[in-house]
Amino acid sequence: MATVLVTGASGFIGRACLPLLDDAGYEVVAVARTVPAWAAAGSIWREADLLQPGTATTLIASVQPTHVLHLAWNATPGQFWTSRDNVRWVQASLDLLEACVGRGVGRIVAAGTMAEYGTKGGTCDETATPCVPDTLYGVCKDALRRIWLDGAERAGVSAAWGRIFHPYGPHEHPAKLVPSVIRALLAGETVATTDGRQQRDFLHVADVAAAFVALMGSDLKGAVNVVSGQPASLRTVIETISARIGRPELVQLGARLRAAGDPEILAGIAGRLHAETSWRPQHSLDSGLADTIAWWRQAMEADHAAT
Amino acid sequence: MATVLVTGASGFIGRACLPLLDDAGYEVVAVARTVPAWAAAGSIWREADLLQPGTATTLIASVQPTHVLHLAWNATPGQFWTSRDNVRWVQASLDLLEACVGRGVGRIVAAGTMAEYGTKGGTCDETATPCVPDTLYGVCKDALRRIWLDGAERAGVSAAWGRIFHPYGPHEHPAKLVPSVIRALLAGETVATTDGRQQRDFLHVADVAAAFVALMGSDLKGAVNVVSGQPASLRTVIETISARIGRPELVQLGARLRAAGDPEILAGIAGRLHAETSWRPQHSLDSGLADTIAWWRQAMEADHAAT
Repeated sequence: MATVLVTGASGFIGRACLPLLDDAGYEVVAVARTVPAWAAAGSIWREADLLQPGTATTLIASVQPTHVLHLAWNATPGQFWTSRDNVRWVQASLDLLEACVGRGVGRIVAAGTMAEYGTKGGTCDETATPCVPDTLYGVCKDALRRIWLDGAERAGVSAAWGRIFHPYGPHEHPAKLVPSVIRALLAGETVATTDGRQQRDFLHVADVAAAFVALMGSDLKGAVNVVSGQPASLRTVIETISARIGRPELVQLGARLRAAGDPEILAGIAGRLHAETSWRPQHSLDSGLADTIAWWRQAMEADHAAT
Repeated sequence: MATVLVTGASGFIGRACLPLLDDAGYEVVAVARTVPAWAAAGSIWREADLLQPGTATTLIASVQPTHVLHLAWNATPGQFWTSRDNVRWVQASLDLLEACVGRGVGRIVAAGTMAEYGTKGGTCDETATPCVPDTLYGVCKDALRRIWLDGAERAGVSAAWGRIFHPYGPHEHPAKLVPSVIRALLAGETVATTDGRQQRDFLHVADVAAAFVALMGSDLKGAVNVVSGQPASLRTVIETISARIGRPELVQLGARLRAAGDPEILAGIAGRLHAETSWRPQHSLDSGLADTIAWWRQAMEADHAAT
C-alpha cells in the first residue's frame, strides 16, 4: 500500500490535503509539531519538529513512506517574507530530501511559491519565466527547489514542486485578505482597501490541495504553477464578497494606498497542471468565496456562542 | 584587531591562504576536522566538524571573528561532482551563515566554483553569464550562493563569493592533472593524455589565495571569478611541464579520448577582480608551473629518502 507522509499537515494547505489523500487511497501519516485538536479519529499523526537536525531521518525510518508531501515552512503572515526561519527551513527540507534517498521513497512533492519568480509581477510561465526572487522567502524557496529537483533526480527519486500563488478558503489565517474582508463585513465593520485593481490568481484551498494530490499521483517532474489560470482583481474579490454578504456600503475601495512595489498583476498560467495532470479546479471564484463566507459565518457564530 | 576564521584551512586553497592572511594583518583562526601535521608553530587551530549541526554556532561564539573565509567542502577528486555530501555542505554552510548573523561578523567570503555556470563551457562573465549548473556539485554551490549572498545582505553582513576555476600548485591532490603529469615525468613514466586542445584557466594556488585575501579586504559584494583571465590549452600546460622537466618524449598527446561532454573552453573573465580589487596574479603559467615542478621534485625526493 502507498503511504504518504505529509509535513506541515496541520497548516492551511496540509489540512485540506489530508482527506483528499485518504480518498485517493493512500495511507496518510500526518506530521506536525503538535497534533491539532481537529485531528480526525482514526487518522495517523506523528509529532515532530523538522527544524531539529536528525528528525527527518528518524521519521522516514520509522514511517517508511513511499510518498512524501512536504508542505512545512514558516508561513506566518507579516513574518515569513523576511524571517531567518527561511534559511532554517531550507536546511530542514534538505534533511528531509536526504532522509528519503535510498529508503524506499519513490515520489516527493513539495510546496513552492510564486515568490520564486520575484514580486515584479506578470503572468508567470513555469517553463519560460526566469526566477529572480527579491525576498528572502523567495530566494530560499528558489534555491531549495534547485537542489530538491536535481538532488532527487540524481538519486532516482521522482520529484515535483507545486508553486502556490493566492490560496484562500476555510481555516486561512484571519490576517489575510479574504478572511479579513469577510470577517469585517460579517461583523458590520467598514473595510478600507486599496484601489483593488491588482490582478491575482485566487484559488480555493480545496483546489490547491487537489492539485497537490494530482501531482503526487502523476509522474510530472519539476516545477508547476498551482493556479486557476484565471486571475481576478482584488476589487472583484472584495465586491463579490460584499455583494454576497449584502454589505457593499461598508467597503471603502481606494481608501488605502498600495504598498510600494505592489505589482499590477501577479499570476501564472496553469500550463503544466492542465497539460500533464487531470486536475481541474472545482470552484469558480464565486462558488469558492460563497463557501468561504459560509464557513466564516459558522466559525464566527461558534466563537460567539462559546464566549 | 580583525580576526578571520578560516574553514577548510587544511585544504589545498586554505593552506595557501593562511600565511597571506597573517601577512595582511589578520589574527587567523584556522578550522579543520584535524589539525594538520604541518600546522605552523604559534598558529591558532580549532578542530571542528562543520557537518555536525550546531558546530558553527559554537565556533563563532567562542572565536568571535570579525571576518569569515569559508572554504570547507568535499573536494575529493572523483567524488565531489556527485557526492550527497554536496547537500550536507549546503546545510553546513547555511549553519555557518546563520551563526555569523548578529554576532559581530562583518565580512564573509566563500568559495564558489566555475561549476555554477555549468560544464557547457565558454568564457564566463560573472556579471552576464547565466548559471545553469549541470552537476550536483554545481547545483548545490549555485543554490548556496543565492542564499549566502542574499541572506547575508539582508542581515547586514557584507558577503562575497569567489568562483574557483583551475587552481594548481604545491600540495594539490596528486590525482589532478598538473601533479599527475609532473609526478609521472619526474618518475620517468609515460603520460597518455587527450589531444589537449581544451582551453582552461589555470591559476597558481598562491594567486588564488591572494585573490581571496584581496576579496576579504575589499567591500566587493556578490560573485566574482577567481581567474587569470588568460586561458591556456591543456597541451600548453603539459608541454611546458615536459619541456621544463626535459622529458618531452614521455608525453603521448592524443593517446586517450576526451571524456564525453568535455568542453573546448571553460574559462572566465577576470572582470570584477581586476576592476574592484588591486589583485593581480604574481605567477605567469610558466613561473607557476616551474614553482610547482620544483615543489614536487623536492616532495618526491623527501618521500624517496624516507622509504
